[in-house]
Amino acid sequence: MTNTRTGPGLQLRSLIKPEGLLELSLVSIPTPEPGPDEVVVRVEASPLNPSDLGLLFGGADMSTAVASGTADAPVVTAKIDAPVMAAMAPRVGESLAVGNEGAGVVVEAGSSAASQALVGKTVAILGGAMYAQYRCIKAVQCLVLPAGTTAAEGASCFVNPLTALGMVGTMRAEGHTALVHTAAASNLGQMLNRLCIEDGIGLVNIVRKPEQVEMLKQAGAAYVCSSSLPTFMDDLTQALVATGATIAFDATGGGRLAGQILTAMEIAANRTAKEYSRYGSTVHKQVYIYGGLDRSPTEFNRNFGMAWGIGGWLLTPFLQKIGFEAAQKLRERVAAEIKTTFASTYTKEVSLSEALQLDEIAVYGKQATGEKYLINPNKDV
Amino acid sequence: MTNTRTGPGLQLRSLIKPEGLLELSLVSIPTPEPGPDEVVVRVEASPLNPSDLGLLFGGADMSTAVASGTADAPVVTAKIDAPVMAAMAPRVGESLAVGNEGAGVVVEAGSSAASQALVGKTVAILGGAMYAQYRCIKAVQCLVLPAGTTAAEGASCFVNPLTALGMVGTMRAEGHTALVHTAAASNLGQMLNRLCIEDGIGLVNIVRKPEQVEMLKQAGAAYVCSSSLPTFMDDLTQALVATGATIAFDATGGGRLAGQILTAMEIAANRTAKEYSRYGSTVHKQVYIYGGLDRSPTEFNRNFGMAWGIGGWLLTPFLQKIGFEAAQKLRERVAAEIKTTFASTYTKEVSLSEALQLDEIAVYGKQATGEKYLINPNKDV
Repeated sequence: MTNTRTGPGLQLRSLIKPEGLLELSLVSIPTPEPGPDEVVVRVEASPLNPSDLGLLFGGADMSTAVASGTADAPVVTAKIDAPVMAAMAPRVGESLAVGNEGAGVVVEAGSSAASQALVGKTVAILGGAMYAQYRCIKAVQCLVLPAGTTAAEGASCFVNPLTALGMVGTMRAEGHTALVHTAAASNLGQMLNRLCIEDGIGLVNIVRKPEQVEMLKQAGAAYVCSSSLPTFMDDLTQALVATGATIAFDATGGGRLAGQILTAMEIAANRTAKEYSRYGSTVHKQVYIYGGLDRSPTEFNRNFGMAWGIGGWLLTPFLQKIGFEAAQKLRERVAAEIKTTFASTYTKEVSLSEALQLDEIAVYGKQATGEKYLINPNKDV
Repeated sequence: MTNTRTGPGLQLRSLIKPEGLLELSLVSIPTPEPGPDEVVVRVEASPLNPSDLGLLFGGADMSTAVASGTADAPVVTAKIDAPVMAAMAPRVGESLAVGNEGAGVVVEAGSSAASQALVGKTVAILGGAMYAQYRCIKAVQCLVLPAGTTAAEGASCFVNPLTALGMVGTMRAEGHTALVHTAAASNLGQMLNRLCIEDGIGLVNIVRKPEQVEMLKQAGAAYVCSSSLPTFMDDLTQALVATGATIAFDATGGGRLAGQILTAMEIAANRTAKEYSRYGSTVHKQVYIYGGLDRSPTEFNRNFGMAWGIGGWLLTPFLQKIGFEAAQKLRERVAAEIKTTFASTYTKEVSLSEALQLDEIAVYGKQATGEKYLINPNKDV
């Protein structure tokens, strides 16, 4: 098998043109010959995560999207507003490959023993350019999935599972004992709920719709607060008192939610305070914004004392901070529990050309909870 | 002198009544007899800092203030809105003494050698209840002022000087090399400007009015940006590129300024970046809010990548973090440079009863730059 060179493969590309246009297309590229420590993976499953959509759409207004090209070589163009173009300046003219993570079968390997040992194995990989038929990658970056695991089951081994583990790790490292999560009905939210139940960690789930409350409660969640209810602030405060959570991870970013969480944390902290403190409670209250589902400005009244912080949170710096060995332990836990704690569900599996159909973009582009797509770059090829 | 007991003295009190009324008044209280390690200070100068006004006014709407009582025993009442009352619940019914810091002469001392050594000395003290004729305090809390220093000159030895030193200390501890300061024309801002010049630290001063730009430039400031100019964002970005400042201390809190600073820091960081980073610059950008001159909500667009933080900053936790010895070194530096680096200026010196006159409250209550008052509790008594 390693003597047969893999032929060229399709790869999805995102290009921003200087005139303010996004262009999505498929290109056929030769598959690189693996170096001694590398393997070629035939990618069979790669999720469309919110973090992928940012790179894919480049801030374009997808309501202006137009299809052209052919069925086999579709092209999608969409307009980008001037202020967004200013922010995108560094990537203008660069045709970028997309897709953070995926899984597939090792079809070609370099000469090293580690590479050769992977031939025929189903592996999960992280590293970009996964919306492609083939991905050449270092053997050490391959996470071998337990026997009987499909590529689809292993497609999301990194972004969501490591993010859930990273939230719990950050919570512990910064001295908190329980946490709050928004957009808690998402794939990631359900995963975090299972992880916290398994590890005995207090979790306050914030969702927007009543049916999401039910879903999470049936999945064993002890605290689920719906932000659409008039009792939201009271519900949240009670859950914070019960769990003692003083750190939150917010996927929405915009609007008033981050501030509401800090306010409720302050009320919860003062419920147990013995005397009036002019600068508010001395307990540090932290909200990390790790997503931007709500693109409106972030707004808050500072009615939560002085011991608070709001900041950005990203997985990569967290993994760099804990170091390779600690991160490897997390990855091995993910592989071992990929069908249970870290399982993901998808609405639909599409091919590369289907992923560039306007009606599909309209669905997965919404980033709606329960509308997550999986790309299989080797489907229908 | 230590055998003569000091008589009763006037003390200013702030009381919130359950019906939603603030009441300011003067009470006559016996001066405590100092314990062995304590002294009694005749307070001759105590500033009205923004941090004092919060406790003094208790969030009351001072435009509703009404005067009653007599010239010697004035009483001021003002209404407090219901939402503010909710936040003030812990202090309702507690008659609170006010005034963080001050200076005066030691008129009575306990038996210990340390206490006795202070008799007749002019000292600066921190610890609350300074809007009073006499303040009993531990000898170890007294900062002896250099010979020839008046109480008025030494009245502000702690809050502003230690805050300026705390900002520089926080900047260093968190790995930054230059800083940004808003409301930079304030007493504190002028002090920080002198400190940064003396210590060779890059400082970007943000002010609101053109005449404040001139004042700071004449005081030697290299970078002064006026937020009222249309070129503000460009001016700020250039100053950030020149200084490399990635941390800011913001006295205003509300509005868009904190976000504008982060945005400008991101643009400055990307000017030197080599390639497109999808999550923005990896340099951590931090804004600490330490005041609330602008009471409107804080609002920002998250167009500054993911490596950012906004949080509250207070002097006391900073001093606790560095420990007593390090803090003592800072205090000794303040005393040594109280007439130069750490000098303060005041618009007016008022007595305790003058401080409760409505026309005076209208002036110092504005917290306007250049309208700072000093209370002399032993004036006209």
